[in-house]
Amino acid sequence: MDGFGDFKMVTRVSIIGITGYTGLELLRLLLAHPHVEIAHVTSRASDGEPIGSIYPHLSHVDLTVSNPDLDQIATDSDIVFLCLPHKTAQDTVAALHGKVKIIDLSADFRLDDVATYEKYYATPHNYPDLLDKAVYGAPEIVGAEKIAQADIIANPGCFALLAQLMLFPFAGTIEKADIMAVTGSSGSGKSASDGTHHPIRSHNMKSYNINKHRHIPEICRSANITAQQLNFVPTSGPFVRGIFATAFVTLKPDSTPKCAGDVYENAPFMRLQDSVALANIVGSNFCDLNYQKVDDHTVIVQGALDNLVKGAAGCAVQNMNLICGYDETTGLKQLAPLYP
Amino acid sequence: MDGFGDFKMVTRVSIIGITGYTGLELLRLLLAHPHVEIAHVTSRASDGEPIGSIYPHLSHVDLTVSNPDLDQIATDSDIVFLCLPHKTAQDTVAALHGKVKIIDLSADFRLDDVATYEKYYATPHNYPDLLDKAVYGAPEIVGAEKIAQADIIANPGCFALLAQLMLFPFAGTIEKADIMAVTGSSGSGKSASDGTHHPIRSHNMKSYNINKHRHIPEICRSANITAQQLNFVPTSGPFVRGIFATAFVTLKPDSTPKCAGDVYENAPFMRLQDSVALANIVGSNFCDLNYQKVDDHTVIVQGALDNLVKGAAGCAVQNMNLICGYDETTGLKQLAPLYP
Amino acid sequence: MDGFGDFKMVTRVSIIGITGYTGLELLRLLLAHPHVEIAHVTSRASDGEPIGSIYPHLSHVDLTVSNPDLDQIATDSDIVFLCLPHKTAQDTVAALHGKVKIIDLSADFRLDDVATYEKYYATPHNYPDLLDKAVYGAPEIVGAEKIAQADIIANPGCFALLAQLMLFPFAGTIEKADIMAVTGSSGSGKSASDGTHHPIRSHNMKSYNINKHRHIPEICRSANITAQQLNFVPTSGPFVRGIFATAFVTLKPDSTPKCAGDVYENAPFMRLQDSVALANIVGSNFCDLNYQKVDDHTVIVQGALDNLVKGAAGCAVQNMNLICGYDETTGLKQLAPLYP
Amino acid sequence: MDGFGDFKMVTRVSIIGITGYTGLELLRLLLAHPHVEIAHVTSRASDGEPIGSIYPHLSHVDLTVSNPDLDQIATDSDIVFLCLPHKTAQDTVAALHGKVKIIDLSADFRLDDVATYEKYYATPHNYPDLLDKAVYGAPEIVGAEKIAQADIIANPGCFALLAQLMLFPFAGTIEKADIMAVTGSSGSGKSASDGTHHPIRSHNMKSYNINKHRHIPEICRSANITAQQLNFVPTSGPFVRGIFATAFVTLKPDSTPKCAGDVYENAPFMRLQDSVALANIVGSNFCDLNYQKVDDHTVIVQGALDNLVKGAAGCAVQNMNLICGYDETTGLKQLAPLYP
Repeated sequence: MDGFGDFKMVTRVSIIGITGYTGLELLRLLLAHPHVEIAHVTSRASDGEPIGSIYPHLSHVDLTVSNPDLDQIATDSDIVFLCLPHKTAQDTVAALHGKVKIIDLSADFRLDDVATYEKYYATPHNYPDLLDKAVYGAPEIVGAEKIAQADIIANPGCFALLAQLMLFPFAGTIEKADIMAVTGSSGSGKSASDGTHHPIRSHNMKSYNINKHRHIPEICRSANITAQQLNFVPTSGPFVRGIFATAFVTLKPDSTPKCAGDVYENAPFMRLQDSVALANIVGSNFCDLNYQKVDDHTVIVQGALDNLVKGAAGCAVQNMNLICGYDETTGLKQLAPLYP
Repeated sequence: MDGFGDFKMVTRVSIIGITGYTGLELLRLLLAHPHVEIAHVTSRASDGEPIGSIYPHLSHVDLTVSNPDLDQIATDSDIVFLCLPHKTAQDTVAALHGKVKIIDLSADFRLDDVATYEKYYATPHNYPDLLDKAVYGAPEIVGAEKIAQADIIANPGCFALLAQLMLFPFAGTIEKADIMAVTGSSGSGKSASDGTHHPIRSHNMKSYNINKHRHIPEICRSANITAQQLNFVPTSGPFVRGIFATAFVTLKPDSTPKCAGDVYENAPFMRLQDSVALANIVGSNFCDLNYQKVDDHTVIVQGALDNLVKGAAGCAVQNMNLICGYDETTGLKQLAPLYP
Repeated sequence: MDGFGDFKMVTRVSIIGITGYTGLELLRLLLAHPHVEIAHVTSRASDGEPIGSIYPHLSHVDLTVSNPDLDQIATDSDIVFLCLPHKTAQDTVAALHGKVKIIDLSADFRLDDVATYEKYYATPHNYPDLLDKAVYGAPEIVGAEKIAQADIIANPGCFALLAQLMLFPFAGTIEKADIMAVTGSSGSGKSASDGTHHPIRSHNMKSYNINKHRHIPEICRSANITAQQLNFVPTSGPFVRGIFATAFVTLKPDSTPKCAGDVYENAPFMRLQDSVALANIVGSNFCDLNYQKVDDHTVIVQGALDNLVKGAAGCAVQNMNLICGYDETTGLKQLAPLYP
Repeated sequence: MDGFGDFKMVTRVSIIGITGYTGLELLRLLLAHPHVEIAHVTSRASDGEPIGSIYPHLSHVDLTVSNPDLDQIATDSDIVFLCLPHKTAQDTVAALHGKVKIIDLSADFRLDDVATYEKYYATPHNYPDLLDKAVYGAPEIVGAEKIAQADIIANPGCFALLAQLMLFPFAGTIEKADIMAVTGSSGSGKSASDGTHHPIRSHNMKSYNINKHRHIPEICRSANITAQQLNFVPTSGPFVRGIFATAFVTLKPDSTPKCAGDVYENAPFMRLQDSVALANIVGSNFCDLNYQKVDDHTVIVQGALDNLVKGAAGCAVQNMNLICGYDETTGLKQLAPLYP
């Protein structure tokens, strides 16, 4: 049914850095994937603990967190997912490269250009030679073929992927894009902070890093614009999952942008909707889009995705499917949004 | 792996009454079930509409709502799920009985006694003869064997199932039980009402039907107590999914209650936790429990389940698995809670 | 301290249409106002009922809802607040005009132009002659003097007031403004509806009436732009109180916009903040603003106010203060935001 | 109108420890109090900072945080409110005692018995001699007269006050009380922690310190029961403000409890309601109660109050009013609940 026989119907995967929200979400999806066998879920701090003792919502899962050396992980796995902070991820990617297929959910290999990386992330990049080995893991933009053959996948940032999917049909025809994007609190990770303190976050909206957010270069690249042509207003919203974004796009005079319906015709997780609602995508790998033409050179684009799924772990599994030769939607499409 | 070969690996199911939250949740679970094929999803009001045009979160699902006659549904299905209001469900169950296996999510066949039904539901029961054909669909209480052989399953009420699972190990030894149970707004269904109006519900708690709730007779039956031995305080809480209940249980003097760990030893969806947290079960079929002994005859019991899953659709799928001879957990256990 | 002696330290006020959220919020503010005496709070449907029996949160308030004729209300009041739906309000304003000072919280007298009103509200205006008797009740824009002398105040729309206060310093210099504004559920009023159904609204964002919202002509007027120069995206957010808006403003070449700090120097409820956060204004009459210059002709403006206070009842009390000769802030400024 | 003339219409107050939620809430209420003048608001860490630079929601308030020595505070104040952690508060109370009236919002002087204090708070009490100088600041229970004459007020704990107000009419007649009380996240204070991390807290319920909570001895004292007669289940709820509690009370045989309506007849902030709803008290000093008789010796009691107002700062202002000879409700009763 997936287009191949019994041969290698099982993919052995490991998750390095299981204890954060991204690692947990990957595990949620991989547990529901018909062809996956978990090799290792690792954490230095929780080495030896059953996953259920750290996270009681997983107390039914028979897995123990471990901390094997990287060679062991490579040997035992077909695919390794890295859920590490940027900078830390670099070293691990370098150590694993050539030994196993890598899907890196950090930012370290998303940008082609060292200088841009170092400017936005304020840290050196120690493996510039590896940058062109990494394929940017946005299947709808990069194309399934390139991903299928990659050794290192640089999984996109959550804001970045949504903004790109919204703008991509207009790539090369954009004069200016003003984007206001609201994210849920799960985007801040599992560590408590002032910004995720419930007494305020529960009814707050607040923007941050306006025109300075690290996802800006990812957006500009696929939209084929400079940072000066983009205003990007990331905003914290009072909900847990999802990003809801609105873009006011000015097209270049006499340009002929593509139609999103054509561009995403064969993209199984892209849904063009009459209107976009955040509640329609929670828990799923779908990205909902709406394009509203204002006049010949102005379009209001809205989009939504679940930052932990399509914006992170779901996209990573989609990339894994392509690498392993499974149908792109395996283990993902049957997971309908949690509604309500 | 499910204990049988290729023979009849597909179960054809229909959902009568697809447009409410229970019908939708069943569809969500059935779409992820490896052995299910959807025959019909029905609604009188939405006959002919693609499911995605009523519910855009399902716009990727290729299903059209229909309204075939019941014989057609019976012919095309191995299992029919009824997601109809009580009273309406009666007639449909009677019409389908003998033609197809029925899992009724309404209240109409939950109680053995017509008088009790008519008292709590304030409506006549027109099919008293069918009452003893129906098996109460709580596998952990009734036992898998009885369910496997049933023609009609009366799927439990959400509050009722949680309270029963909390009290069941003490059945026969309870002198008194005081229960305070808080439910999410999805329990009120998809129709807007004052009680689910967001400006208030978002930060409100309010009890209703204290000692009058319709689920009381279900609770009393399996706990082996009278309504006079129970105080039941159903309460609306400011969240969407789940029920969180606390029971203060006084045991009879010199009684020796069973240990929950023993009672639920082989129950795959029952999890005994060090403490119960609502957020640990959202979206899943698990029921989390905690028993805290205060003194020789007093126990504080806490429990949580997702009202739409274990409290409705998930339990119904569990019953379907037992009827069809699948492993009880098929299509359910791999669905980890949505966390966060 | 309020600039006058003991003479007429009491203002008698009535609220016509007490049972909606706007009427209730007015009552909350007026109960805390040192110079106000409530004459009548009226409702046709609740005539004769103590306010606390309709709204138990007010059970300590000794007021009975009544339904006197308008002449009686005029006789007993110095100020009458109308909290009626548009269209209904027209007739009442016409009947009361000349007999008592009127503060109308409906939309009926906000626009100067009958044709624009009839286009956006899809209903005839029966009192075009009264339109120029009404003063638009935005003190920071219209000026205190005009309001002090008005017989009819047309209190601004909530979205409209926020957008205007954001754009007003740039009036006359704007080439284009793109606004994305997110509102809480209290803006939908007290009647339950699909859009305020808690199971979805609690975690949803969804835009509506894009470029068609009724508040557009109010915004354009004070910003001195046409509707073609504005994109306005009203959006429902998952919180109760407040509006949080982001405007991308393109200024005309060679224009010299005013500085918001200067424009609002003497406006006691306008606060220029380093960044705008919705949680900072809840329950108060403050409007927080932030201006971030991108380049010589581009500014990102953010603003927030409580839709029920500064966006409705609080602004109405501010107008009342000006009419009565009290300090503009009486009964309002001591009400700090509810934080957290 | 407050029962006295122009003489001493101003009370000078200081808040020691302004930066927590209790200090902030006191400031909110005191800013709206007609007879209060703020002398000092203090914090060691924020000495010299304008209040608005720490808390932008107060950017309109012209106050600078300072850190004067205690003698200076005593000299400049008629009343000093302490918003310090327990243990720290002890020393400050001892240092200020005899120099100024003290309202201590910590736990340090709530209990009469050193051993009980040391058991529940796990820290020594260094001023046992001062314990009987302190009056427990629950006016409805202790009586206004005792409070009016106190030099030190020990302001009650939030859970404790609600539970006491619920049980007090039954004092001396209670055989057993089982209480399940749900609190908002503001009760955890302003510091971010795992328990207030928005991604989970927003939809979680979880109990903690069952039968071990520090407020238990306060509850037992006024209810005239032992800790063995009480089960107390404090629970975190997914909202910001308020506590909603349910008590299952078993009365002693042949006892004749008082009627709450009589006990609270002259208590202006106690409201007996047909049913209790959390949303009815937010932001106000009201405590709502409901008593539902089950049988001759069983009563279900429900209650709600705002933990930051009646459960802390509002009760403190009520105590201040009594000490200063103002009407008990001054500056409080006009603050209607924030609804919705």
